[in-house]
Amino acid sequence: MSQIEYFMPEGFRVSSIEAAVKKPGRKDVAVIYSTVSATASGVFTTNLVKAAPVLIDMERIKGGKGRAVVANSGNANACTGARGLKDALKMSLAVSKALKIPDDEVYVASTGVIGTPMPVARMIPKIKEAALNVGNSTLLDAAHAIMTTDLFPKIASARFNISGKDVTIAAIAKGAGMICPNMATMLCFVLTDAAIVRAALDEALTSANDQSFNRITVDGDMSTNDTVLLLANGLAANSAIKSGTKNFGIFKNALTEVLLTLAGMIVKDGEGASKVMKVVVKGAKNEQDALILARAIASSLLVKTAVYGCDANWGRIIAAAGHAGVDFDPNRVDIFFGGVRAAKNGLTTNNDNAAATELKAASVTITVDFKTGGKASAQVLSCDLTEEYIKINADYRT
Amino acid sequence: MSQIEYFMPEGFRVSSIEAAVKKPGRKDVAVIYSTVSATASGVFTTNLVKAAPVLIDMERIKGGKGRAVVANSGNANACTGARGLKDALKMSLAVSKALKIPDDEVYVASTGVIGTPMPVARMIPKIKEAALNVGNSTLLDAAHAIMTTDLFPKIASARFNISGKDVTIAAIAKGAGMICPNMATMLCFVLTDAAIVRAALDEALTSANDQSFNRITVDGDMSTNDTVLLLANGLAANSAIKSGTKNFGIFKNALTEVLLTLAGMIVKDGEGASKVMKVVVKGAKNEQDALILARAIASSLLVKTAVYGCDANWGRIIAAAGHAGVDFDPNRVDIFFGGVRAAKNGLTTNNDNAAATELKAASVTITVDFKTGGKASAQVLSCDLTEEYIKINADYRT
Repeated sequence: MSQIEYFMPEGFRVSSIEAAVKKPGRKDVAVIYSTVSATASGVFTTNLVKAAPVLIDMERIKGGKGRAVVANSGNANACTGARGLKDALKMSLAVSKALKIPDDEVYVASTGVIGTPMPVARMIPKIKEAALNVGNSTLLDAAHAIMTTDLFPKIASARFNISGKDVTIAAIAKGAGMICPNMATMLCFVLTDAAIVRAALDEALTSANDQSFNRITVDGDMSTNDTVLLLANGLAANSAIKSGTKNFGIFKNALTEVLLTLAGMIVKDGEGASKVMKVVVKGAKNEQDALILARAIASSLLVKTAVYGCDANWGRIIAAAGHAGVDFDPNRVDIFFGGVRAAKNGLTTNNDNAAATELKAASVTITVDFKTGGKASAQVLSCDLTEEYIKINADYRT
Repeated sequence: MSQIEYFMPEGFRVSSIEAAVKKPGRKDVAVIYSTVSATASGVFTTNLVKAAPVLIDMERIKGGKGRAVVANSGNANACTGARGLKDALKMSLAVSKALKIPDDEVYVASTGVIGTPMPVARMIPKIKEAALNVGNSTLLDAAHAIMTTDLFPKIASARFNISGKDVTIAAIAKGAGMICPNMATMLCFVLTDAAIVRAALDEALTSANDQSFNRITVDGDMSTNDTVLLLANGLAANSAIKSGTKNFGIFKNALTEVLLTLAGMIVKDGEGASKVMKVVVKGAKNEQDALILARAIASSLLVKTAVYGCDANWGRIIAAAGHAGVDFDPNRVDIFFGGVRAAKNGLTTNNDNAAATELKAASVTITVDFKTGGKASAQVLSCDLTEEYIKINADYRT
């Protein structure tokens, strides 16, 4: 049916099914299975309030092994207390029993409404059925199953050569709202057939995540459920990748590329977004300053609404930077919308109309050069803020 | 014309005029004059990017004296460089010459578009005319003249007795957007005929401001122009108020009350707001934690949109608290909408419908008890986030 093409790594089987978690009418559960035990790595929400599946996964990831993932949309299993933990464990047990694999190598991920107990009674039989039928779905089907307010499924892949072997990475994600200050209501499952040692896998994921999901923002909120899971099953039979090697660099770059692609899709699909907004900060004293400034600009409601309205209102940009807590001289700042310089040394260039025209594009780049004498730069992806965001979030549970 | 009643302190004269700063059709300049030199105090934006009039006022306030204020809406004179400073000085000079008062006792305040030079050529003659005609307008007229996207003028007053004399405080403000993390695109001029020593005036203003304007939020942005100015001309002829006295307490409380009233009006008039949202945090370890938590909840877009949609989505509240950076146990948290407890010990009480009914009021109180064992509490006023906010800010400059 779908025309989306992607590479699929060896040895992963996928299943998806309708469990009517929130309501009937669509597949809302996915099971991903590796035919052999995989090396596993994960990154999780830093919100103090963590959903039950996150608490379970954070414990299990310590073992460094993974064999399957069970994920659902419709209910986040967050703020559900002891019952929530039991429910999440029931989900993993349904999978491990059906597939006859160690229960602590099954990861659980949920997304959807917070504070409502999971309808496990109707979910568990469906999860079992899905697990028994791995292979009946594509990874793209799984990407569909984990969607909440997402308007389109998010999938990306890469194929490259390591020590004479074809190695593949494929990943799916769901996003939409709450994407900031770090990765947020966001699930991402990355599958690879690379052979790679655990420490190298962790290092690559941390770095790639920091360069991608940690540099996007939709609404400044951060969810209780953020999870990025990476399973590497080694079936590409390359010589095992170790940190600090050339092959590690190849793998890390490919992984970063895949996560960046998904991050871009998440922002493009930001709740109600009409356009993607890339904020590039240049000339900062150091990278930390650059990132703080880029985040402050990319998160400002006044900047996001101005971009929505195609108003090259650079004053809002410099004002947003001004309360980021980073020192700079406002009288040196240059601001560009696309290729048009709207402000030079903190003053208007009287190019508002040309700059506004740049804002009519589906993807807008705002470049701010702070000219501190430093050469540090950073980039944050965001989206505009529209009436549609309000509608989506005012009516979410109804 | 207007039916708004307020007390007016002795010895202040007001004028307002149309200078067509942004466009013709309304009075957009106000001059406030004290017939005798007043003791002056001020609080200004902490944004690194400060508008020209703010830079001038911050310098002049060091002298501790004030005789007049000239304020305009339509243009913020921010990000206007050396020319902006000259323009602001021209504004004060027009007033000081016309009224034959020391130029460094004239304060300047501007609000409106950022980054566009002031149309001083047409403003200066109008400012002179206004200064020459002080007494031709009421303080309420001045409140009208400083409005930008405000839907109604903001004025409050108090009259009380100090050492047998009637003392009056009257204040006007403009607000609407950008009201956070501290007072933001907000101008407030407070006039009193109290006799009070400079140190006591500073102490009272700092305290009252912290309890009022620093505890409201509309959209998380902070402006380049925030200014609260307080002139105390002593014409009530009370014995001069000093810090640490009973009279100081009376004055400070009255001032806090007046600023709180204005703060409430600003939130009620938050851009596009359909209802006022009061967030009360209880049971925090200390006051700082309580304030951080209250601000995080009151600022969350997901909380604000849920309140707009009358959705008692307490999960978003606990999630917003969870990324505030303050430690608490999610399993102890109680959340109330109005009088209805929606969550107890971090779990749903299945009272969503009753709680949603509470959200239909024009003013909504969300109480979150963290039950840390501590008894600290804090309260932040905010408003919901609606499609109208987006419309206002997408189209602001057009």
